[in-house]
Amino acid sequence: MIISEMRLHPVAVADGPLRSSYGRHAPYALRTIVELKTTDGLTGISETYGGEGPLAALEGARGLIVGRDPFQLTDLWMSLAARAEQESRGDRSQTMLVPGENPLDVHTRTFAALEVACLDLIGKAVGKPLCDVVGGRARSKPPFSAYLFYKHGGGGGMGADAREDEYGECLDAKSMVRQARQMIAKYGFEEIKLKGGVLDPDEEIETIRQLRDEFGEKYPLRIDPNCAWSVETSVRVGRELKEELSGGGYLEDPTATMEGMAEVRRRLLAEGIDTPLASNVATTCFEHLPVARQLDAVQIVLSDPHYWGGIRAQQHLSKFAEVLRLGLSMHSNNHLGVSMMIMAHASAACPHLSYACDTHYPWQTEQDEVVLGGRVPIVNGCVEITDKPGLGVELDYDQLARGEERYRTLPYRKRDDEAEMQKHVDPNWKRILPRW
Amino acid sequence: MIISEMRLHPVAVADGPLRSSYGRHAPYALRTIVELKTTDGLTGISETYGGEGPLAALEGARGLIVGRDPFQLTDLWMSLAARAEQESRGDRSQTMLVPGENPLDVHTRTFAALEVACLDLIGKAVGKPLCDVVGGRARSKPPFSAYLFYKHGGGGGMGADAREDEYGECLDAKSMVRQARQMIAKYGFEEIKLKGGVLDPDEEIETIRQLRDEFGEKYPLRIDPNCAWSVETSVRVGRELKEELSGGGYLEDPTATMEGMAEVRRRLLAEGIDTPLASNVATTCFEHLPVARQLDAVQIVLSDPHYWGGIRAQQHLSKFAEVLRLGLSMHSNNHLGVSMMIMAHASAACPHLSYACDTHYPWQTEQDEVVLGGRVPIVNGCVEITDKPGLGVELDYDQLARGEERYRTLPYRKRDDEAEMQKHVDPNWKRILPRW
Repeated sequence: MIISEMRLHPVAVADGPLRSSYGRHAPYALRTIVELKTTDGLTGISETYGGEGPLAALEGARGLIVGRDPFQLTDLWMSLAARAEQESRGDRSQTMLVPGENPLDVHTRTFAALEVACLDLIGKAVGKPLCDVVGGRARSKPPFSAYLFYKHGGGGGMGADAREDEYGECLDAKSMVRQARQMIAKYGFEEIKLKGGVLDPDEEIETIRQLRDEFGEKYPLRIDPNCAWSVETSVRVGRELKEELSGGGYLEDPTATMEGMAEVRRRLLAEGIDTPLASNVATTCFEHLPVARQLDAVQIVLSDPHYWGGIRAQQHLSKFAEVLRLGLSMHSNNHLGVSMMIMAHASAACPHLSYACDTHYPWQTEQDEVVLGGRVPIVNGCVEITDKPGLGVELDYDQLARGEERYRTLPYRKRDDEAEMQKHVDPNWKRILPRW
Repeated sequence: MIISEMRLHPVAVADGPLRSSYGRHAPYALRTIVELKTTDGLTGISETYGGEGPLAALEGARGLIVGRDPFQLTDLWMSLAARAEQESRGDRSQTMLVPGENPLDVHTRTFAALEVACLDLIGKAVGKPLCDVVGGRARSKPPFSAYLFYKHGGGGGMGADAREDEYGECLDAKSMVRQARQMIAKYGFEEIKLKGGVLDPDEEIETIRQLRDEFGEKYPLRIDPNCAWSVETSVRVGRELKEELSGGGYLEDPTATMEGMAEVRRRLLAEGIDTPLASNVATTCFEHLPVARQLDAVQIVLSDPHYWGGIRAQQHLSKFAEVLRLGLSMHSNNHLGVSMMIMAHASAACPHLSYACDTHYPWQTEQDEVVLGGRVPIVNGCVEITDKPGLGVELDYDQLARGEERYRTLPYRKRDDEAEMQKHVDPNWKRILPRW
């Protein structure tokens, strides 16, 4: 089995005007669907970040992947990592860069996309689900959390393709409770994540309180302002939400930098508040982990097979986190059904995974799904690993063509949430850290 | 593919009267050959520690392995680790215990033996070498080192089965150089390890010097006294052998405990001597690694898939070591051709592996080999990963039966090098740490 062809499909996926400290989501999120075809007629698929940068990086790896036996992944990794070595080894935090745009982890992202497609091929060749190809499953129904966003009205898309969504405008606590009710009714999630860093911290504290009132202790709560707060504000929010974030909840990236996180942690502990801090900003690569542990800056690492380097890297990370006594959860970006299954298999294959994973999947719709047969079901908050080989999903090529057509007609080629804010909300809007 | 049967073959393998700080090797080393048979007629094999303890642990896992899909290894690991959780989490150093006899890592050893047999099955089922099943190879010809031992005359065996070997008695520097010449001529090794802790340190220093004179800088040298030295003596040896252990050599477990190693390192560095310290005593499990790094007690971790938890654990370890900026080499015990291939595949599958691995293989002979077709070739110091599926070796059942027969007639069921010293050398001999 030799890889004879790589096909890259850049797609645009309608996305609602979701808000975060980065700004506002554009009407379409960008993704790339990868296909690897083999000499014996198999097709392995994958999904990764979209737009020009990620696409160019995958193109740059074409010579490394075509002609390769998909089992030879270590060598592929070493080749891509060797290229990275030649670049600067600077700051790999994601403080200012959205995942998928950091030039310093381009090799891990590119490898991940190709590794998953190769593992999908192997799964299909041997008739086993992907998670079984890498060692078998720790769980067959990995859980995900309800990912709530403050948002403007509408459900993404532009012009004739403009959509509505079922959630409408959510810019206060009350509408957020409604959003949570709707999302939980539809998907059965049992943990709740609120994307914060959008409203005044007091309003976000109020939102968390109302969510707690509505759902009670059985639904652990997490809030993620993407570093929008100062150390002072982070400590204040941690103090105010001591009860609400207890019992399996966490405070995610309240403030920027490893040192800032460590200070928040110290000051909260000094007040007897043991709310763990989670991060996908201070900790984005293996080298960050010992530092995070030593400073006690991060207690829960937010993994993501898409940029940590794929499924086996996720397994390394799970082992690392266990050894360093760090919790593990999973970060998400807007994604389609292929990535849903990547995240599900990655979660299934890791013994140490302490929390339900994030997913943006509720923010995408059937209309843009590229998976044959439609969207991947989320039942009781979980995605089931079936007995289907590889990722367990195939591409719907008509849907894929529609996604590519949307991409072609779009005027932008990378995510820029700041530009969207300037366009729709405030022409002078800038991302300021800390804002509060 | 479901595992329908587990067969355990305890074997005895003639072994020369090799010396170390533990004492003297018995006339036979004990090993266990594992066979897993599947419903569709495949047989996966493995090799692990011998004698009653390891055998009982494998027996205890029978209910977990028979009926299992060999792809479901994560679940097997979790089941075995859960049992270990119930036991004490005490000292996992190997200061006083030989590898294979520490009750605290019985779950990692048992899992490793079963994992390898399952991976051999998978490799055979999919027609791929074992290292490719776990991600593909970083190298196809992993290198090994010449493992020199002070020894008495003879080549192991007892009574009518007593053997000679080509090395004869080696109890001084001169005969050790001869041993090295013979072993390198036969196998082509390009790195040299001397098992020390046997003679007065000055004699061992002299041995290393003569080896350096004979082989020059092209053959990096390492010496391993198995903790026989005090911190003071370790520093002295490090000082005296500053030149000889430079250029890819190392000082292995000169003294006991993480703190002792850290002190040796500090004092050598203070004298401008940067000879790295390697260990398979202070660092025997993942939890030791961050401590070793923090104390700078160990610069090179000696892995061993047999007790670190198998091939995938070896890959985790390789990643850990890379991230923590620790070198990686591999520890060995007396073994047959199946373990030779386990070590070769484990090495092949790890991007980060900084040194040629140890192997006792030159100390065993064709007469006891259980691998069909005879001993695994070592050419230019390397074991080649061929295209054969799984481990790439099959069992010779006649040879296996002979090994089992030898085991049955033996009066001992575990390794006890102290008892051998008392029997043959000095009735009052005790292992004393530090001896010098």
